[in-house]
Amino acid sequence: MPLKKNAFYAQSGGVTAVINASACGVIETARAHRDRIGKVYAGRDGIIGALTEDLIDTGKESAAAIALLRSTPSGAFGSCRYKLKSLDTHRREYERLIEVFRAHDIGYFFYNGGGDSADTCYKVSQLSEAMGYPIQAIHVPKTVDNDLPITDCCPGFGSVAKYVAVSALEASFDVCSMARTSTKVFVMEVMGRHAGWIAAAGGLVEDHGIPVVILFPEVEFDEKKFTARVDTLVKKHGFCTVIVSEGCKGADGKFLADQGSQDAFGHQQLGGAAPVVANMVKQALGYKFHWAVADYLQRAARHIASATDVKQAYDVGAAAVKLALKGHNAVMPTIERTSDSPYRWRIGVAPLAKVANVEKPMPRHLITADGFGITPACRRYLSPLIKGEDAPAFRNGLPVYATLKNVPVPRKLPPFELR
Amino acid sequence: MPLKKNAFYAQSGGVTAVINASACGVIETARAHRDRIGKVYAGRDGIIGALTEDLIDTGKESAAAIALLRSTPSGAFGSCRYKLKSLDTHRREYERLIEVFRAHDIGYFFYNGGGDSADTCYKVSQLSEAMGYPIQAIHVPKTVDNDLPITDCCPGFGSVAKYVAVSALEASFDVCSMARTSTKVFVMEVMGRHAGWIAAAGGLVEDHGIPVVILFPEVEFDEKKFTARVDTLVKKHGFCTVIVSEGCKGADGKFLADQGSQDAFGHQQLGGAAPVVANMVKQALGYKFHWAVADYLQRAARHIASATDVKQAYDVGAAAVKLALKGHNAVMPTIERTSDSPYRWRIGVAPLAKVANVEKPMPRHLITADGFGITPACRRYLSPLIKGEDAPAFRNGLPVYATLKNVPVPRKLPPFELR
Repeated sequence: MPLKKNAFYAQSGGVTAVINASACGVIETARAHRDRIGKVYAGRDGIIGALTEDLIDTGKESAAAIALLRSTPSGAFGSCRYKLKSLDTHRREYERLIEVFRAHDIGYFFYNGGGDSADTCYKVSQLSEAMGYPIQAIHVPKTVDNDLPITDCCPGFGSVAKYVAVSALEASFDVCSMARTSTKVFVMEVMGRHAGWIAAAGGLVEDHGIPVVILFPEVEFDEKKFTARVDTLVKKHGFCTVIVSEGCKGADGKFLADQGSQDAFGHQQLGGAAPVVANMVKQALGYKFHWAVADYLQRAARHIASATDVKQAYDVGAAAVKLALKGHNAVMPTIERTSDSPYRWRIGVAPLAKVANVEKPMPRHLITADGFGITPACRRYLSPLIKGEDAPAFRNGLPVYATLKNVPVPRKLPPFELR
Repeated sequence: MPLKKNAFYAQSGGVTAVINASACGVIETARAHRDRIGKVYAGRDGIIGALTEDLIDTGKESAAAIALLRSTPSGAFGSCRYKLKSLDTHRREYERLIEVFRAHDIGYFFYNGGGDSADTCYKVSQLSEAMGYPIQAIHVPKTVDNDLPITDCCPGFGSVAKYVAVSALEASFDVCSMARTSTKVFVMEVMGRHAGWIAAAGGLVEDHGIPVVILFPEVEFDEKKFTARVDTLVKKHGFCTVIVSEGCKGADGKFLADQGSQDAFGHQQLGGAAPVVANMVKQALGYKFHWAVADYLQRAARHIASATDVKQAYDVGAAAVKLALKGHNAVMPTIERTSDSPYRWRIGVAPLAKVANVEKPMPRHLITADGFGITPACRRYLSPLIKGEDAPAFRNGLPVYATLKNVPVPRKLPPFELR
């Protein structure tokens, strides 16, 4: 008879429209295995909750509240941008984690995040061997950037892709109406620091007759080629839509726009490529423009989430618990695509050693030769990921989203100072 | 037995998520009265279509295509920003209109737009008296700015208000998750050149526990008071959301951001108040921020339209035709509210002379004393307007929107040069 242990779950990095669906998958599946998993403690604000012994007792939430997480965007327990340093140089943090795990009888560690978080999860998974504390660490994939390796796609991406495609379609219809005497070029800036997956989703509207120019981080920006392409499309169609990734860079390797500040992982904080690009169009061609920066709206837009994405997010959460119960450590459930059309997928498993700190940029064959569009192969890849609608319930015109009680677990240890 | 005449319908000014629902109301109602109304000709690109005799025969569209207009954003026949000058100085344009109306036996003129367009419609309505051509001109109200007088609200506004409230809610949940180690202030720029109705809709999320600061065009911007307010909310809640209207102005009367170009009506083209405000927060308080500019995304977002708004847009279109059939000229159907809760409304009628060129700013009693929020009276006004969902059909993950054939009516007249 295997031991009954408590579980720790935390959310890390930028949140998404469906990371709470993964939390729902973890918690509901754990509740279905009460013989093996005792409490599910959530870290308040990610791994910081573990370090500071700031744990939330998810057992205090009703089944209905946990079920509502499936249709609630954002991180219900708080997220953080906080990367564990190496075990060699920061042994103090790892010793604290073990202290907290031991005090609360935690044997399962579920960490819900992207590439940086996979690294943290991997480090925790090594604690058994390195420091003699038995823990099973499973990473639950999540990132709108879609840049985790091995998995066919990342939960969170399908919904932001759907948001971008729907928004680009609607705004393009708008510009098309106005182009005769007013706006001819609409520029929409989207997320994707190092990978153009999100920007690529804007290309899906070409099926609806919309002329689109995409500016990928993977393609060096060339102002002359860009404005020439816009001019060609406007002369042919009367208007055009530009999707610019926040990660788009010029020949000098600099981002088109740079707010000049950095996040806690040391990444530059981006924003504002759209006005830069729009002004280039105005100066070179004289066309009237409008621009939008979707920013958080795109990754939080649970109201237009992809049903495929919601289901995958839930299922990787559930799979993580099942993998733990089978004795796995240092792994991540993945999405394995078995067919494009009809779209079929199943849950796979990847070793975390091969996931942590590896970024998956868009393969060049998914981008057209001129660098401004997506290929049929890209369309086949993206199309199923945005399929299906899974609207939340609405009350008084607004979505009904969960706000949990987040009852703290009584502390047993002295405080710990974050450095 | 009254004469059977053809009708002219055109869309004017910035398009909305529901202006095509009004087109649907006009065309379906006209089709139900074939004994009195012959063809419905739509102007390609608004009034320009009438001046250049560029007419679209809506009779060539199937009933299903016209029905689909009800759930299609943008202007299906093209819109324009083109304001007729005065009859005294630009008699040539009015003579041309009469020439086109006479050539195509047009006796009904339905013009679908905002304040500037109401002026154009009013001028056309005077043609019978001034130039002896019998025409009945009915204005169909439309503007996301919600600044037309007399009518309780304007079709187009409810949907943009719903988009702003939903987006603000979702992004605020996102920021709340991240605030511990990352973004603490989220700034969202919304439309509303001279009236803060759209920005006010962001205040509806306060019911969900979200701390919000609204920057209205009606309130002179004061940087010190603003950053102090943000600081108070961040210290209390850990984060805050700022909704800034594109029309927000400082003590010098200048817009916070100004792209430096003008539209065809001579209005300054705005955009970019969000980054200005976000940087003020960063400089004064040091908080990490994110900002979004929704721009066209907000007014095109049919996928999250308000069911109330869609119905009102359809009904004013239908009412315009019925008013014409009753012999009215120079009027506009209005929305008359008879009860807040339960929300009840009916169609009324306003004389165009009292509508044209009159803007309705937000009354000061709808804005809190400190200038940064909305009052309970404002909440009672706004809340019913965003109620109900009316999602379009989806295919392959994207909304199904109508693209009409827009078959041209054969020209009978020599060309006319726009000046």
